[in-house]
Amino acid sequence: MIVTVVNVHVIPGKAEEFLKFTKYNHDNAIKEDGNLRFDVLRSREDPNYFILYEAYATEEAAKAHKDTEHYKKWREGVAEFMAEPRVGVPCDALFPEDFE
Amino acid sequence: MIVTVVNVHVIPGKAEEFLKFTKYNHDNAIKEDGNLRFDVLRSREDPNYFILYEAYATEEAAKAHKDTEHYKKWREGVAEFMAEPRVGVPCDALFPEDFE
Repeated sequence: MIVTVVNVHVIPGKAEEFLKFTKYNHDNAIKEDGNLRFDVLRSREDPNYFILYEAYATEEAAKAHKDTEHYKKWREGVAEFMAEPRVGVPCDALFPEDFE
Repeated sequence: MIVTVVNVHVIPGKAEEFLKFTKYNHDNAIKEDGNLRFDVLRSREDPNYFILYEAYATEEAAKAHKDTEHYKKWREGVAEFMAEPRVGVPCDALFPEDFE
């Protein structure tokens, strides 16, 4: 299993457009084989700060996500909304060891 | 529901001791009323970088966590292992709206 935590800072005024693309990506990602979680969070302190929490059963499934049409549409669609480069942190889950 | 994403950087050489306290906190937190998730992740790129992903059904349940004995033991126990102050980001979950 691999969990990637992605920190996203969006240009002020672009959050709603960002969320349209992100909801489309989320709605399709959760149907992918091997997807365990795809949570989209918004900071309560900064409405332009989002965190994506993406868990996949295998590294292959996580890589396959990046080849999907919905991911590519998202990546291209949100590019102009980024206030700074996204930072993704690939992680191992320690506790619990597996997500269900 | 509230989700708090906590970024923790541990002093090199102290990760295993940090994890002993954190496992104890995790094992008890998941039994709390209102706890939906308490995931402990470790960065694949930096073994001293941990992310805690704590979801509670209500703000009251999240606050009650900080009054538990296991949380207080964790907070006091890990204090000397912090390489820098922890950064917790309180968030709303947008998609999905609820964790189960």
